[in-house]
Amino acid sequence: MNKIPVILDCDPGIDDTMMLTLAFARPELDIRLVTTEAGNVSQDKTTYNALSFLTYIKQDVEVARGLDAPMFRTLEVAEEIHGEGGLGNVKWAEPTLQTSDRSAVNAMRETLLASDEPMIIVATGPLTNVAALLFAHPEVKPKIKMISWMGGAAVGGNVSTTAEFNAYVDPHAVELVFRAGLPIVMSGLDVTHKAYITLDEMERLSKSGTPFAEKVAEMMKFYTFTQSQTPFHAPNFEKQIRVHDVCAVAYLVAPELFQGGDYFVEVELEGRLTAGSTIVDYVGKTGKAPNVKVLHTVNREGFIELFFNAVNTIGKQLA
Amino acid sequence: MNKIPVILDCDPGIDDTMMLTLAFARPELDIRLVTTEAGNVSQDKTTYNALSFLTYIKQDVEVARGLDAPMFRTLEVAEEIHGEGGLGNVKWAEPTLQTSDRSAVNAMRETLLASDEPMIIVATGPLTNVAALLFAHPEVKPKIKMISWMGGAAVGGNVSTTAEFNAYVDPHAVELVFRAGLPIVMSGLDVTHKAYITLDEMERLSKSGTPFAEKVAEMMKFYTFTQSQTPFHAPNFEKQIRVHDVCAVAYLVAPELFQGGDYFVEVELEGRLTAGSTIVDYVGKTGKAPNVKVLHTVNREGFIELFFNAVNTIGKQLA
Amino acid sequence: MNKIPVILDCDPGIDDTMMLTLAFARPELDIRLVTTEAGNVSQDKTTYNALSFLTYIKQDVEVARGLDAPMFRTLEVAEEIHGEGGLGNVKWAEPTLQTSDRSAVNAMRETLLASDEPMIIVATGPLTNVAALLFAHPEVKPKIKMISWMGGAAVGGNVSTTAEFNAYVDPHAVELVFRAGLPIVMSGLDVTHKAYITLDEMERLSKSGTPFAEKVAEMMKFYTFTQSQTPFHAPNFEKQIRVHDVCAVAYLVAPELFQGGDYFVEVELEGRLTAGSTIVDYVGKTGKAPNVKVLHTVNREGFIELFFNAVNTIGKQLA
Amino acid sequence: MNKIPVILDCDPGIDDTMMLTLAFARPELDIRLVTTEAGNVSQDKTTYNALSFLTYIKQDVEVARGLDAPMFRTLEVAEEIHGEGGLGNVKWAEPTLQTSDRSAVNAMRETLLASDEPMIIVATGPLTNVAALLFAHPEVKPKIKMISWMGGAAVGGNVSTTAEFNAYVDPHAVELVFRAGLPIVMSGLDVTHKAYITLDEMERLSKSGTPFAEKVAEMMKFYTFTQSQTPFHAPNFEKQIRVHDVCAVAYLVAPELFQGGDYFVEVELEGRLTAGSTIVDYVGKTGKAPNVKVLHTVNREGFIELFFNAVNTIGKQLA
Repeated sequence: MNKIPVILDCDPGIDDTMMLTLAFARPELDIRLVTTEAGNVSQDKTTYNALSFLTYIKQDVEVARGLDAPMFRTLEVAEEIHGEGGLGNVKWAEPTLQTSDRSAVNAMRETLLASDEPMIIVATGPLTNVAALLFAHPEVKPKIKMISWMGGAAVGGNVSTTAEFNAYVDPHAVELVFRAGLPIVMSGLDVTHKAYITLDEMERLSKSGTPFAEKVAEMMKFYTFTQSQTPFHAPNFEKQIRVHDVCAVAYLVAPELFQGGDYFVEVELEGRLTAGSTIVDYVGKTGKAPNVKVLHTVNREGFIELFFNAVNTIGKQLA
Repeated sequence: MNKIPVILDCDPGIDDTMMLTLAFARPELDIRLVTTEAGNVSQDKTTYNALSFLTYIKQDVEVARGLDAPMFRTLEVAEEIHGEGGLGNVKWAEPTLQTSDRSAVNAMRETLLASDEPMIIVATGPLTNVAALLFAHPEVKPKIKMISWMGGAAVGGNVSTTAEFNAYVDPHAVELVFRAGLPIVMSGLDVTHKAYITLDEMERLSKSGTPFAEKVAEMMKFYTFTQSQTPFHAPNFEKQIRVHDVCAVAYLVAPELFQGGDYFVEVELEGRLTAGSTIVDYVGKTGKAPNVKVLHTVNREGFIELFFNAVNTIGKQLA
Repeated sequence: MNKIPVILDCDPGIDDTMMLTLAFARPELDIRLVTTEAGNVSQDKTTYNALSFLTYIKQDVEVARGLDAPMFRTLEVAEEIHGEGGLGNVKWAEPTLQTSDRSAVNAMRETLLASDEPMIIVATGPLTNVAALLFAHPEVKPKIKMISWMGGAAVGGNVSTTAEFNAYVDPHAVELVFRAGLPIVMSGLDVTHKAYITLDEMERLSKSGTPFAEKVAEMMKFYTFTQSQTPFHAPNFEKQIRVHDVCAVAYLVAPELFQGGDYFVEVELEGRLTAGSTIVDYVGKTGKAPNVKVLHTVNREGFIELFFNAVNTIGKQLA
Repeated sequence: MNKIPVILDCDPGIDDTMMLTLAFARPELDIRLVTTEAGNVSQDKTTYNALSFLTYIKQDVEVARGLDAPMFRTLEVAEEIHGEGGLGNVKWAEPTLQTSDRSAVNAMRETLLASDEPMIIVATGPLTNVAALLFAHPEVKPKIKMISWMGGAAVGGNVSTTAEFNAYVDPHAVELVFRAGLPIVMSGLDVTHKAYITLDEMERLSKSGTPFAEKVAEMMKFYTFTQSQTPFHAPNFEKQIRVHDVCAVAYLVAPELFQGGDYFVEVELEGRLTAGSTIVDYVGKTGKAPNVKVLHTVNREGFIELFFNAVNTIGKQLA
């Protein structure tokens, strides 16, 4: 079997660890690099969290530290959602992994250029690292097959009325990536809000027999509570867990679970109310060619099965 | 019966004439003033069209000419939708009505102050006149019971990706009105796109036996064709007529046909992509108190019956 | 002698009272209306201050209360400069004058329309009232001969790096006035910073023999101190008094004291750093016709003589 | 003598070649890399021009091709000033030099990291390359001693009313560089407009005896004419040549010719009228620490002598 060569760019963050779980559980992925960036929490914390979680799940992979701050905006973190440390109420492991002596951008560049075949970048943060890479080093583009990003929203934000967190944190970075001329898949709130897990379902996972699953379920309970404290209208919202970032890997390994369409998408950089919004041209008003595949629906049962299997796979490997 | 005292502020425009048709057909409305403003076509043309149509339907009402241009933006008209003259391919009547010697703003002010009871303003244009009135003369506010406006869109525009025509033409005016602290009902694209009439239904109306209905149906065919030339995705879009402005009066006389909710709504004034968008805070992200009732659904059958009855009422009056 | 018919629109504010002093001291001006607006301090305070000062100097003139807040921006006042009440450390008189029962905008409109000859509007605030008048009632324009405004700056602001206070408070109002197609004279910081009075000179005025001059000098000392606390680089800045608003009347009665040029001037409405800046096109980059006479130099000795004479004239009238 | 290690980042452009002339004439500079970027003309043309001119002046240096376009803005070139090809009416040489196989950003990064001592970057274009370098690779900062940039303007632009060409072309790049925390010297229009050469002076240079000087003078005549066609008010403007970019090197080798001050400078990214303006906080309004040395005056005679000597030095080397 030909494995898919992958770089994971993340800002752990609770759901980033679940994304890592799915990614490392899947045999068809060849994960060559993990990079970190500021976002859910500060760069220091996301890097520590990546090292801690990867140490716990016993993955020996290069972890390269990325950029400390968005391009132009002052960093705004989401500790009210992910906890002060970024991983809720759970302590994973004292890191034995260490960060690479290559910077994230440099490690990405060299990894891509060294690859025989085009790679896939999974990104679940504000895209600062990827934007820096593509802007400074357009020569890597032929080595990128796809960028699968969790972020953005066609309709309705979670930070402001119209903007999703990752796009809000670094809208200029997202715009640079959208303009890069590469195949991009956007798992925005439109689909990630449908990829929820109920507390009951999570309870079942918790009892599936491994300490890892128990710890995951414990972290999820924290996450459900903090998410439920933000303004959002949906029936039973407080009993549902949205593991947004997992979608970006799920689409790679099970694209048949998702539906979406190809549209021209831009980022509002300057609005008083709408800065950081991803503007999806559903009806062709701009007359511009599609640049992003925007996912909007997901087979929730299939998604949960995929995710729970991953937790169990890792859980058994560790047992 | 206590009649509802009303001012109609419009920019005819094909659907503005249908709004006038419904308004003048309804006995419960006491229409004291019609004001015109630039929008669908230039101020000269909207004023001529108002006079011409009101002459045809034999309504003797004060028509006051309003402002020539939006607050800050250069006027953009929609002649590709409403035709060069503004009323498609139909000629109504050589006006015998004349414009008032009062300006629209002054006529509105004096009419409101002279009214014993609070009045309702129906506005189906970019709100330039109403904004000028409220900004320069806040003392009229106690005499305004409600502003029923056709314009805006919670999701998806018809001029740009996110902006509806009226709000796009004069976003500053809309924002001033939204901030005025008055009860506002917004019939945006969210509801007006659902208040469509099929070509078959219009054919039935055409055969209902009055020359007026025939002329209306002829104008509608023009309108359907021009609307169908704009980018929009909906099944059978090219066989549907959207008489947006009619909703603003329909809500007054048959509010039970509509559903909506009260939200905080602001206008994006500055965005590169989103200027003129009405940002509806559905989930309470801003923490601000609702200032606008946003309509989102309509009983289409009821709406059509109401509208067709109005055409027939006027048609028979003229016969 | 034909008197010049004048409306004074102000936001007292220390230097506004000195503007009033010069205006009421000059026999060639026929002051038919004083209007107040929010600016240096709140609307309540500017109105009280106008009534109090005019009562003290025994002028019986219509004082009409204007708009409470800028068009779009939240009001920012300058109490750190003008004192909490707006007139520094001096108490003028318990008002016996009362405000008109006409609003500022309405009084302006009716006064202009009733005038046989075109009038001059002197404005020394953020222009909110004048903008409302011109926007809502363009029919008054033929009755306006000139607007002499203190505000703006071609180079260097006093609120932000590039914006002067009045323009910063209500940039949209200033822009509307600049676009009105009327003759406008702008006494910006470029000239008002050159129209300074030294503390020594003010000391001489103080000893000129009237209680009024003493009170003026006392208020000026306060003003000099508060101005000196703001960041500004000029030799002996802390010993100089800038009575900005006085320039707007001085230009009317002694235009020969000033030099300037006619340029196209616009207001930056949207900048992150530059909102509220008046952008003077000195070299014709825009290719647009001049709309504003921008004053840049003043004969300081002549200006001081004019101003001191006015103080003495009023002082003797009151004695 | 310890030479100063230098990277030259340019967009030739007529005055860029004069900057190269001064740089390569000075023995105290150790020029290790020349990079090109889009600006005065397209990237293809600036690269060709750099190779052609360096071939003519017989300098064997690494020339690395940079980025094709500004960060967010669409490239606007200045062919009306520099001619269609970018070097006016003069043909220098068929290039025998070739571009490096390293990209500009990568060559800069590796050159800096390989240097024992901190280097100076002279930049005379829109700063796109330098911004990409600093954003993607902050690890190079300790190896940068100073960035000497021609661009910006404290007062008065040459593209728009307030913006200078280089800053206007890529304001985001300039802002990123200004925020980098490095010593920056800005030779903006404030000083470069004072560093002019008269046509008479240039005539003298032309007769100084080398074919190179003649060719330089010929190119300068073209440049003078095109500059004179742009709106600008100065006595004898049409008889003066402004070789803006030369200042950025002149400051390195003869800082005593210049005067300036240290200020906090930001770039307006979003204004309707002022985008691309460099906002210099002369009076400390922002309260932020200086980040840029802004040059404002130059000893013109000394500057001309420096420049003419350089032309003669190169001219004699080639003879």
